[in-house]
Amino acid sequence: MEKPSKAKESTEVTNSELVLPPHTNHYGNIFGGTLVSFMDITGGLAAMLFCNEEVVTASIEALDFKTPIKQGDIIEQKGKVIYTGKTSMVVSVKVYRIEKFTGKKEFCCEGYFVYVAIDEKGNPKSIPALKIPTEVDKENWEIGRLIKNRALSRQERPSAKTKEF
Amino acid sequence: MEKPSKAKESTEVTNSELVLPPHTNHYGNIFGGTLVSFMDITGGLAAMLFCNEEVVTASIEALDFKTPIKQGDIIEQKGKVIYTGKTSMVVSVKVYRIEKFTGKKEFCCEGYFVYVAIDEKGNPKSIPALKIPTEVDKENWEIGRLIKNRALSRQERPSAKTKEF
Amino acid sequence: MEKPSKAKESTEVTNSELVLPPHTNHYGNIFGGTLVSFMDITGGLAAMLFCNEEVVTASIEALDFKTPIKQGDIIEQKGKVIYTGKTSMVVSVKVYRIEKFTGKKEFCCEGYFVYVAIDEKGNPKSIPALKIPTEVDKENWEIGRLIKNRALSRQERPSAKTKEF
Amino acid sequence: MEKPSKAKESTEVTNSELVLPPHTNHYGNIFGGTLVSFMDITGGLAAMLFCNEEVVTASIEALDFKTPIKQGDIIEQKGKVIYTGKTSMVVSVKVYRIEKFTGKKEFCCEGYFVYVAIDEKGNPKSIPALKIPTEVDKENWEIGRLIKNRALSRQERPSAKTKEF
Amino acid sequence: MEKPSKAKESTEVTNSELVLPPHTNHYGNIFGGTLVSFMDITGGLAAMLFCNEEVVTASIEALDFKTPIKQGDIIEQKGKVIYTGKTSMVVSVKVYRIEKFTGKKEFCCEGYFVYVAIDEKGNPKSIPALKIPTEVDKENWEIGRLIKNRALSRQERPSAKTKEF
Amino acid sequence: MEKPSKAKESTEVTNSELVLPPHTNHYGNIFGGTLVSFMDITGGLAAMLFCNEEVVTASIEALDFKTPIKQGDIIEQKGKVIYTGKTSMVVSVKVYRIEKFTGKKEFCCEGYFVYVAIDEKGNPKSIPALKIPTEVDKENWEIGRLIKNRALSRQERPSAKTKEF
Repeated sequence: MEKPSKAKESTEVTNSELVLPPHTNHYGNIFGGTLVSFMDITGGLAAMLFCNEEVVTASIEALDFKTPIKQGDIIEQKGKVIYTGKTSMVVSVKVYRIEKFTGKKEFCCEGYFVYVAIDEKGNPKSIPALKIPTEVDKENWEIGRLIKNRALSRQERPSAKTKEF
Repeated sequence: MEKPSKAKESTEVTNSELVLPPHTNHYGNIFGGTLVSFMDITGGLAAMLFCNEEVVTASIEALDFKTPIKQGDIIEQKGKVIYTGKTSMVVSVKVYRIEKFTGKKEFCCEGYFVYVAIDEKGNPKSIPALKIPTEVDKENWEIGRLIKNRALSRQERPSAKTKEF
Repeated sequence: MEKPSKAKESTEVTNSELVLPPHTNHYGNIFGGTLVSFMDITGGLAAMLFCNEEVVTASIEALDFKTPIKQGDIIEQKGKVIYTGKTSMVVSVKVYRIEKFTGKKEFCCEGYFVYVAIDEKGNPKSIPALKIPTEVDKENWEIGRLIKNRALSRQERPSAKTKEF
Repeated sequence: MEKPSKAKESTEVTNSELVLPPHTNHYGNIFGGTLVSFMDITGGLAAMLFCNEEVVTASIEALDFKTPIKQGDIIEQKGKVIYTGKTSMVVSVKVYRIEKFTGKKEFCCEGYFVYVAIDEKGNPKSIPALKIPTEVDKENWEIGRLIKNRALSRQERPSAKTKEF
Repeated sequence: MEKPSKAKESTEVTNSELVLPPHTNHYGNIFGGTLVSFMDITGGLAAMLFCNEEVVTASIEALDFKTPIKQGDIIEQKGKVIYTGKTSMVVSVKVYRIEKFTGKKEFCCEGYFVYVAIDEKGNPKSIPALKIPTEVDKENWEIGRLIKNRALSRQERPSAKTKEF
Repeated sequence: MEKPSKAKESTEVTNSELVLPPHTNHYGNIFGGTLVSFMDITGGLAAMLFCNEEVVTASIEALDFKTPIKQGDIIEQKGKVIYTGKTSMVVSVKVYRIEKFTGKKEFCCEGYFVYVAIDEKGNPKSIPALKIPTEVDKENWEIGRLIKNRALSRQERPSAKTKEF
């Protein structure tokens, strides 16, 4: 039987990276796929540490690259669980560039990752509910709910699975 | 002065990969960030070959991992330009698993990537319009327009840029 | 018992890549070993999809780097099965540079890869015979046969295995 | 002229990683060199954010791998500036394994990294002095001083540079 | 003006590697492209240290994978210049598996790499001639000459460059 | 029962690398963590080939980066067992830059790695004793003994394990 799910405070994971040549594209900026890989690790860790289970990435939504990040830049990522369903979590991941010589932060990239907790057979497993004590938490919960619902609605669109272009 | 933009048929890029240990997570499946990196390359090539310009990734939207892809699997990705704005393109990228011993394809993952054409200074550059001759092309154009509008609407939400969680 | 081997049309795999900094050498060109890795994947996929079996690379022959490929270039690889023996296939892999701003293709590199189909114990397994309907197919078959025979003749040169230089 | 050096509080950088197959050795544990690479990034970021300059790694000292870290484990690294000289900093980097299903932390690895601040020509550049307000800070300063002195004493051992073994 | 070319003894480069998970394919063996990358580095270093110039890889010939190399295996590569033309060198690269618990060596893979010395503009540059004092050196020179001539003969087959399959 | 340990001559492993863009930091120099990874492989191979057992890295000590190594440089590493305990070995790893156009070697980096031989369960396993026939061998043994004792003394400092900074 599954453990009972009780309400729990959110987890937040902060990760920093130095952008090195193997991370870059031919403009000397971070390659998009590399940044998403970093964000998926940060988001996945926030999800795992929230539910204390293994997780898999189910969807990525509303990921915007706003400002180019250059080789040699320091980036800081913040991943935070903002919404929970029965077995899934929405994690917001934000990326900032830290100006090396001043320490000033600039907002660069943001995206939402949906993770599903799984048991040792890979089946979905129920997770604790998220506490949302503040007004900002409630606003973020609403964003998370929208993200989750969009992902759900796409599952009900079977034609999308098969239509060839 | 910029070259005049004329309507052009879509480009499609097909890429296949063999999933090797360096692509995997600790379950023996492809790591999400690795798959997005593959898709971003495939999508970006479709965009570049459509507009014959350099491009940058602006947004990723509605990316769903539907079926686990395992080490040793063959995947096939198809990227196709489905919508064009003045300087941006929406590219649909679909990923299929090809069953090695039968050749049968299974739909695994789908996502939408927004690319912006840039000139040598990194400024947006106008691109040709997309021809949409068939009914399916028109349906895909509508999906692309929705994706693009979502990305645009987020740019007008300035609070999202600054609110810390 | 093994499945009977029947004649089958060739398979062709097309893969494109964007040459990024982690692929390059200190001249800003693609590193030779990286390009061979790309070609080995493309060739191996063509072989697997032809015989619907697992395969291993047995030999590489007549691989020529003709034109430098630079960081930021788009390359397109085409792998095609051109010859079949009882358990082995010869795959031709050609690499083209696609000029980004014009779409023009330039021939860059070519090589021949010998693959052997294997069963779950790693033993060679018989494969279908290749149909060679056109004159070009027959010319390519002759090239493939030459490649295969060279590889075979080296196996009969036992001294090569032991002679130290 | 260089900016005057004034006393400054320490910086601490926390980074988490999920140990994936490309990070591992043939026992399924994290490869030593990969862990040192992670620690060097974490330590270097702490140094850069302390002095607001570019830095280079000068020495690694007293790095102990105490507990094996396995594929699929979550690790947390903490890098903190504990000692400053005129142009160099000693950073302590500690690595913990976070038990996924309980959240419990286990100490795994520790090492000391000496960084030197450099200007745009690669010459050493003076840095702020470190504030050491607490007793623990003072103890760590003494460890850092010992680390720094060991590294210095090796520079004065010219025979070590030339003696072949 | 170019420096005069004088006869010089061969150079040999020996490199060892431990086969780790990021080097492997889905059978747990070293991936072919990874092994060729290792061999191209070893061969290229032998060529560079022979001619004291920058070099580029021109061709790979007669490369045979004879014995599977497994994750955790130790491999030893030996690269040696065996033939010199006016601006090009043929390097033989041999790969051995070293049995960890006995130290016994087993021959695994062999290939020939043609390198061309280049000046700072990328143009071919003349190199010293190779001394071939022993009988074995003379036999290897003949193999190298055969390899070089095969590569040359392919340059004179222009149809191969353009024929699509 | 364990095999008897008998005195044995040291092993030395020499490895060369060409520094390529994926090895570098944003100054165009080799990234510290990459160099330590190379050194850990070279040192670990020397240890494995000495004791004919699997080994794990236990400590890194007195590792000094003396001279920047640039993209395109050739480096040569030499790893040699200099000290043996009951189950552990100290390996000295030295790194030289080889000037491409002259062949001249310059000393760049040096460090000491402690390895422990392990059996198939991961438990320490006894190893042969090291023969130290020359005066230089005896001096190196003394350095190795100092390195080993430092590592041992840190194990007896339990506070270091728990003190948070």
